[in-house]
Amino acid sequence: MSALLRTRQATTEAMLAVFADTATLRHALAFEAELARAEAAEGLIASEAAEAIAALCATIAIDTAALAEEAALAGTLAIPLVARLRAALTGEAAKALHKGATSQDVADTVLACQIRAASSLLDRDLKRVATALTTLAQRHAATPAIGRTLLQDALPIGFGLRIAHWQAGVVEAAARLRREVETGATLQFGGAAGSRAGLGGKGAAVSARLAAALDLPDTPPWHARRGGIAGIATALAIAIGALGKMARDVSLLAQNGVSEAREPAIPGRGGSSAMAHKRNPTGCQVALSAALRAPGLVAGILAGLPAEQERGLGGWQAEGPALAELFLIAAGAAEAMATIAEGLEVDEAAIARNLTAAGLGSDIGESPALVAALLAQQD
Amino acid sequence: MSALLRTRQATTEAMLAVFADTATLRHALAFEAELARAEAAEGLIASEAAEAIAALCATIAIDTAALAEEAALAGTLAIPLVARLRAALTGEAAKALHKGATSQDVADTVLACQIRAASSLLDRDLKRVATALTTLAQRHAATPAIGRTLLQDALPIGFGLRIAHWQAGVVEAAARLRREVETGATLQFGGAAGSRAGLGGKGAAVSARLAAALDLPDTPPWHARRGGIAGIATALAIAIGALGKMARDVSLLAQNGVSEAREPAIPGRGGSSAMAHKRNPTGCQVALSAALRAPGLVAGILAGLPAEQERGLGGWQAEGPALAELFLIAAGAAEAMATIAEGLEVDEAAIARNLTAAGLGSDIGESPALVAALLAQQD
Amino acid sequence: MSALLRTRQATTEAMLAVFADTATLRHALAFEAELARAEAAEGLIASEAAEAIAALCATIAIDTAALAEEAALAGTLAIPLVARLRAALTGEAAKALHKGATSQDVADTVLACQIRAASSLLDRDLKRVATALTTLAQRHAATPAIGRTLLQDALPIGFGLRIAHWQAGVVEAAARLRREVETGATLQFGGAAGSRAGLGGKGAAVSARLAAALDLPDTPPWHARRGGIAGIATALAIAIGALGKMARDVSLLAQNGVSEAREPAIPGRGGSSAMAHKRNPTGCQVALSAALRAPGLVAGILAGLPAEQERGLGGWQAEGPALAELFLIAAGAAEAMATIAEGLEVDEAAIARNLTAAGLGSDIGESPALVAALLAQQD
Amino acid sequence: MSALLRTRQATTEAMLAVFADTATLRHALAFEAELARAEAAEGLIASEAAEAIAALCATIAIDTAALAEEAALAGTLAIPLVARLRAALTGEAAKALHKGATSQDVADTVLACQIRAASSLLDRDLKRVATALTTLAQRHAATPAIGRTLLQDALPIGFGLRIAHWQAGVVEAAARLRREVETGATLQFGGAAGSRAGLGGKGAAVSARLAAALDLPDTPPWHARRGGIAGIATALAIAIGALGKMARDVSLLAQNGVSEAREPAIPGRGGSSAMAHKRNPTGCQVALSAALRAPGLVAGILAGLPAEQERGLGGWQAEGPALAELFLIAAGAAEAMATIAEGLEVDEAAIARNLTAAGLGSDIGESPALVAALLAQQD
Repeated sequence: MSALLRTRQATTEAMLAVFADTATLRHALAFEAELARAEAAEGLIASEAAEAIAALCATIAIDTAALAEEAALAGTLAIPLVARLRAALTGEAAKALHKGATSQDVADTVLACQIRAASSLLDRDLKRVATALTTLAQRHAATPAIGRTLLQDALPIGFGLRIAHWQAGVVEAAARLRREVETGATLQFGGAAGSRAGLGGKGAAVSARLAAALDLPDTPPWHARRGGIAGIATALAIAIGALGKMARDVSLLAQNGVSEAREPAIPGRGGSSAMAHKRNPTGCQVALSAALRAPGLVAGILAGLPAEQERGLGGWQAEGPALAELFLIAAGAAEAMATIAEGLEVDEAAIARNLTAAGLGSDIGESPALVAALLAQQD
Repeated sequence: MSALLRTRQATTEAMLAVFADTATLRHALAFEAELARAEAAEGLIASEAAEAIAALCATIAIDTAALAEEAALAGTLAIPLVARLRAALTGEAAKALHKGATSQDVADTVLACQIRAASSLLDRDLKRVATALTTLAQRHAATPAIGRTLLQDALPIGFGLRIAHWQAGVVEAAARLRREVETGATLQFGGAAGSRAGLGGKGAAVSARLAAALDLPDTPPWHARRGGIAGIATALAIAIGALGKMARDVSLLAQNGVSEAREPAIPGRGGSSAMAHKRNPTGCQVALSAALRAPGLVAGILAGLPAEQERGLGGWQAEGPALAELFLIAAGAAEAMATIAEGLEVDEAAIARNLTAAGLGSDIGESPALVAALLAQQD
Repeated sequence: MSALLRTRQATTEAMLAVFADTATLRHALAFEAELARAEAAEGLIASEAAEAIAALCATIAIDTAALAEEAALAGTLAIPLVARLRAALTGEAAKALHKGATSQDVADTVLACQIRAASSLLDRDLKRVATALTTLAQRHAATPAIGRTLLQDALPIGFGLRIAHWQAGVVEAAARLRREVETGATLQFGGAAGSRAGLGGKGAAVSARLAAALDLPDTPPWHARRGGIAGIATALAIAIGALGKMARDVSLLAQNGVSEAREPAIPGRGGSSAMAHKRNPTGCQVALSAALRAPGLVAGILAGLPAEQERGLGGWQAEGPALAELFLIAAGAAEAMATIAEGLEVDEAAIARNLTAAGLGSDIGESPALVAALLAQQD
Repeated sequence: MSALLRTRQATTEAMLAVFADTATLRHALAFEAELARAEAAEGLIASEAAEAIAALCATIAIDTAALAEEAALAGTLAIPLVARLRAALTGEAAKALHKGATSQDVADTVLACQIRAASSLLDRDLKRVATALTTLAQRHAATPAIGRTLLQDALPIGFGLRIAHWQAGVVEAAARLRREVETGATLQFGGAAGSRAGLGGKGAAVSARLAAALDLPDTPPWHARRGGIAGIATALAIAIGALGKMARDVSLLAQNGVSEAREPAIPGRGGSSAMAHKRNPTGCQVALSAALRAPGLVAGILAGLPAEQERGLGGWQAEGPALAELFLIAAGAAEAMATIAEGLEVDEAAIARNLTAAGLGSDIGESPALVAALLAQQD
């Protein structure tokens, strides 16, 4: 899709790299190579065949665009990929390639590897957000500010209390995501119908070796049981929502009639093609835009859960693009909000002025204690 | 809404009772009563006032329909409810009522109580499903059957392997739901702007007592931090999806050209107003219908995450109906699939016939071991 | 569901009545009565039988709660309903009842009748909104006010220009809804498998008579072709979104730091259980809450489009509750915004003050002409 | 995103080209060029300036990747684009560039141009589907086949009746899409705050000229009124759903136990990396996958309707990627189903065999007349 259209929905270079064609291909080749090695170790294929396969996977140059076109026609990446590899092999090695595996084994395992790389990246930016917000929340824990409910002045709170809620939301969401990734992004290895047939009873052993080599947990196959992927997708949407909550509040604070805080000035960010005077909440825009898109992307993944029999028709195939998109917009939102958290410009004079204008006193109740309690949840 | 329209989307009487007006009111009255007691215990209000409030809450007769109408106008249940209670009290008690609390404290705490009751009910039916499926999966672990991928005959599997995947999907989903409810359905007690003002520094102590009395975990307020609710909603959708997966497969197995299994015959269920010969997969219909609706209901809840400031406008108010609906359709789906799991009619002759027709041999690979591995995940 | 929980999501009594059990039953009985008359007119059944059926349908007393329970079990309303009617008839009439029809014919035709009643109600409130907004937009077309983009002061506009956009959004949405209802809410009459079998070649003639009697357009059956229903659902969501746009802006205008407009004061509406000083934007809350829920409800209906064969399993059964919910929340939103449009309190002094504070002059460009152009779209 | 991941979600080269960076840039340059010409024609800028701008737009070479990066930072494409153009101009022309326009004018007008190109492409493939299905439906209108409801044998129908419903669904959806595009994809030209300021009262005239030059309808601005875009998105989802309905049925017909029809054999399509014997319904997979994703993509667009004031923060920015994705998956689905419709392999012997096995006779009722009535709706 147009990278220019994508400007409306920023992400990070690092996250794009996780889901780039070259990364997808690299993981798929690793699967085939490590599968052959695992099978050789279990005596299912010859060691020479395994090494020939592994050597080929390590060196073969593949035109990803051409491969993608064939894969689109075939309905799966593995078919044209395996065909190319096989064509470059001979004898035992050609026969040994992809033994006992099926297209979805490749696709799902590649996805698991990308999920782990992507969530690790994302976790780093979520931690940046949380760390910066912790500092901000503590600094302003006792600063009297007007609290607002239903978009109306309510009663005073410590200015840091709202920030502590942002922090807690992000921390909780990051923990959920780590948990879901840990259990949901695992090796998929079941073979044609998920029975691990054709492996002479060594399927479980091959699976264990393959998982170890790919640095993935070894679990029973999950080809038509997609709750783990759905759990990861929903955790992403909740994390995006937590970032969106912060973005909503920052953009409201930055309104001209409020002016209590605003995004840091970044060269090239937040200007207007028509109005030189503006500093737009462009980082918030990135996160809010992500928060608008995420629920629907999740809905698409949840809708595929009732997969047919041993391999669904349409459902799991729809997950890849949606999950990648969730990670991409999450990365953009996390990066944007990390930058804002680290540089938020707080205007204490405006805070005091608005509090006075509200005329509701300055009793902030137990705000400092609540800030401490919220931040203490940090793992 | 029309209960007749609802026939298209069955639920259980027990789950309807959890979200009935009388239950909502009962929880709200308990909140006010226990709040007064907690505040009296902390010396914030007089014991006599607390007992007068508690006594009133235990005995007052309220026309829920009239109350609902006023609440719809007010935009919140607590306003007309507190007004009625206050009108029935005098002196200190009237002043002490609802002290330090706000409408959303009542609404969210009531929701937390209903979530706990509802998820406990649901968990029971999910366990029924899992238990029955465990038996079925074990019984048919080694029965050769044709496995099907992309709706086409693939390779043989043990007939019980597909069933073990149903079981594992339901068990995993139930565990996720319990975990999310445990952390997400907690006491909400923050007062007007979430600062626990007006409680003389005793807010945390009151919160602890109130939580204990209502049998809820005591956490910092979460009025504008809705990730916990979103986590519960998504866990429900994943559970519904796991039931939908089973329903999809049962309905495919029950096709006339397949006939490997079908729903048990239940008097009054699955007939046709036009065709006396039919036995429709009506239980599967209930679960599949729920699985179609759940993703969108979740999307509506996720969309509200970027809540404004100390109390969002529109977002959290949209959660109640959607979350209740999720529990209602989950209950209907779980009950329907429990009945099916407990009475599934398996036709071994048809299984054998279809396997032979496929002409792909009868090597079921490591199906029995995989069945055992999947079932071993059971908590 | 709990009417108290529903307070969070107000609707109107009139719309509740459209989807009440009694209304559902009334339409279903009308279907059976008029079907019999149409078949008698075509000589397919005896006139006496038709009159006996019609007389019974006009007078029979049915416990809707008991019927709903049986229908939930059966998976369809028509089965227990037809059984009760048949039990109350004898001889020819008993045999003639429901001839050539199937459960879904009843369900879909009832839904079409309810859609027409509901959209007619809704159209009235949308017109109220549009009419009141037209007046407001014209009155303030040339009032200089600061325009705001990305939540920041941008350049001046006529205050009425924003209002004219609200009006145009509502008018366009109302027109789309009328169009979709006109083509999508039609008679469904296809019989058991949609072939109009068993009617001696008179199916089309019966269909024409039945449609005329029920005041519905006569179209070919649409049992497994649900694009028309989806079109109605999406039109509803767009209408709700147009109301939500107005609500978003009114709630932003009503912020304490802005104060350019606010909801009219309504006794019992918009108060706070904790803060006597507040006037909350409760009408906006109703519309914004609806706007958060609508997209997901639509997603659930769209997800059912790939219906199986001659009658889908799960999909169309999920439409009824979702579509009813969309009409209910649309009605609540339209009524709330009509009240606001008719009584919006505009503070011209605040508008002028904010404009001056922005320091961006007072050139409102072609705002008045644009207001006129937008309002001229009104049909 | 990874083109390899995208294989799971095929689209067409032609549709990718519509949304390619080069196309986006070309439309944006055309906007600036024609704006200058229109303003020169109205005497707002010098003719020489306009021609200098137009000449530059026709010839400038821009690195789209670099531009995209700057645009992501800026939050909008127009800012870096206008900066580059301005840097390449001098004097009057530099000042005249982009006069009276704002970033969103460019973005929305570009989107409108892409929507028109995309829907024209899509319409062509939808017509291919409809034409081929018309032939199929007529050919098999009177072929007795078992009709199936709720996935169970019901009563006989003409085999062509189901196909005629596919055709009618696609035709209706195509008509809705054309209607929504006609009214919703129009010129956006409002300037910084939508008031057409700074154009000396000539804004409407400039708009008319600009629209004519870009071959778009001339309407009042719609920057914060997004019902038209939502209408297009929902029409796309309904079209995708109509294709998904056909795909669902074809994949059910192709099951081994049914075998009444199957996708045509296409070299490179539908194989299995593990099972040489399989012919998978890969075209159906493409359409079903699209039908699973579309509802959520629509939900994301509907959720943005309550846009803030004169330019929303987050909402409309989320539309571009979602709308492009809808067109991309619609194109893939339409192309796949066109190929299937044109080459569907119907097995009349299997149809007859299944009908006999059902034992429900062969009365197909008024199927041929219904086929004719459904096809007659074709515009």
